[in-house]
Amino acid sequence: MDADRRVLFFGDSFVAGVGDPTARGWVGRVVAASFDAGLPLVAYNLGIRRETSLEVAARWRDEARPRMRAAARYGVVFSFGVNDTTVEDGRLRVGPAATADALGRVLDGAARLALPALVVGPAPAGEPAQDTRVGALSAALRRVAAACGVPFVDVFADLRADAAWTAEAAAGDGSHPGAGGYAALAGLVLAGGWLPWLRGHPSRQNPQI
Amino acid sequence: MDADRRVLFFGDSFVAGVGDPTARGWVGRVVAASFDAGLPLVAYNLGIRRETSLEVAARWRDEARPRMRAAARYGVVFSFGVNDTTVEDGRLRVGPAATADALGRVLDGAARLALPALVVGPAPAGEPAQDTRVGALSAALRRVAAACGVPFVDVFADLRADAAWTAEAAAGDGSHPGAGGYAALAGLVLAGGWLPWLRGHPSRQNPQI
Repeated sequence: MDADRRVLFFGDSFVAGVGDPTARGWVGRVVAASFDAGLPLVAYNLGIRRETSLEVAARWRDEARPRMRAAARYGVVFSFGVNDTTVEDGRLRVGPAATADALGRVLDGAARLALPALVVGPAPAGEPAQDTRVGALSAALRRVAAACGVPFVDVFADLRADAAWTAEAAAGDGSHPGAGGYAALAGLVLAGGWLPWLRGHPSRQNPQI
Repeated sequence: MDADRRVLFFGDSFVAGVGDPTARGWVGRVVAASFDAGLPLVAYNLGIRRETSLEVAARWRDEARPRMRAAARYGVVFSFGVNDTTVEDGRLRVGPAATADALGRVLDGAARLALPALVVGPAPAGEPAQDTRVGALSAALRRVAAACGVPFVDVFADLRADAAWTAEAAAGDGSHPGAGGYAALAGLVLAGGWLPWLRGHPSRQNPQI
């Protein structure tokens, strides 16, 4: 019998795949590639548009609970930070120290549950001043993940240089790409060690979340 | 500017698309067809494997809340009931009267929020005695939806007769189809009035959920 793998993806609009006319986003493409590689899984996409790190950190345990009631091999993916770097009413929605702290807290929470975690760094927002902040934040989040012993996939620089991503975002709402951009992001996650991470999940039976 | 449409899909493993190696399920296919028809949307897939009607009814408001904070046109889709008809330890997980009551409650709740709703009936479970119960439940849920003035897409009989659905389910875990079966289900939802329902959403601004 196949291992019963289940992965929960928490994050923002990029996790939700907003703007992808194929409705797959990067999460769907990574899941399909996992099936193709002989690693079928149940995926729960829990990305919410406009959410900051603080909002993801506040809800992830509550939304994980009903999705983790079976005896299965669970994993959790976090990807957030872009919305933290938005300026609203003259101030940052969330400053970088608070974002890093939020990541540390969710990774500590996952570790306490012996729940394997993986972090996908923030994608470019499409606005130069903001993207300077996103790039710095991505580096900071990478350090947090490393300190927690959790794999981190840095996607910022590659996506900012990606022709499909930038053209689709510009043709769309300015931030969200279409199918080509999400395919590029999925490719980075796959190249960043996705399949070994998924394959290596320890067997978890009925985690008490 | 395009209308900002957002649809929340609540239900069970069939909503989550369990077993589809393309990671799209029926929800992803319906969303992609909506884009193709000039009706882009943000979709939140909130299907959870093994959940009964009672479990969906218990969580839907909590999970809708963080996903309904923007000024947008919202809609909600419910699809559950198959797991209610499972016998465990010699008894039904949820009896048909309780399932019908749960559907009535979630539809009343949506109506109080002036939130357009659509119901997709339960799919076959793949076991003959259980499927007798699923067929009867589908008819009962159709009556509840009609009484609430909510569109209902009956999929049970067509899917039980669908060659791809039955062959894939038999080749898989017995219940969940693969890509062909989910494509058939998506086709039934599209034929059942999906696009007119999506197009007809009234404009909802910041519903107070």
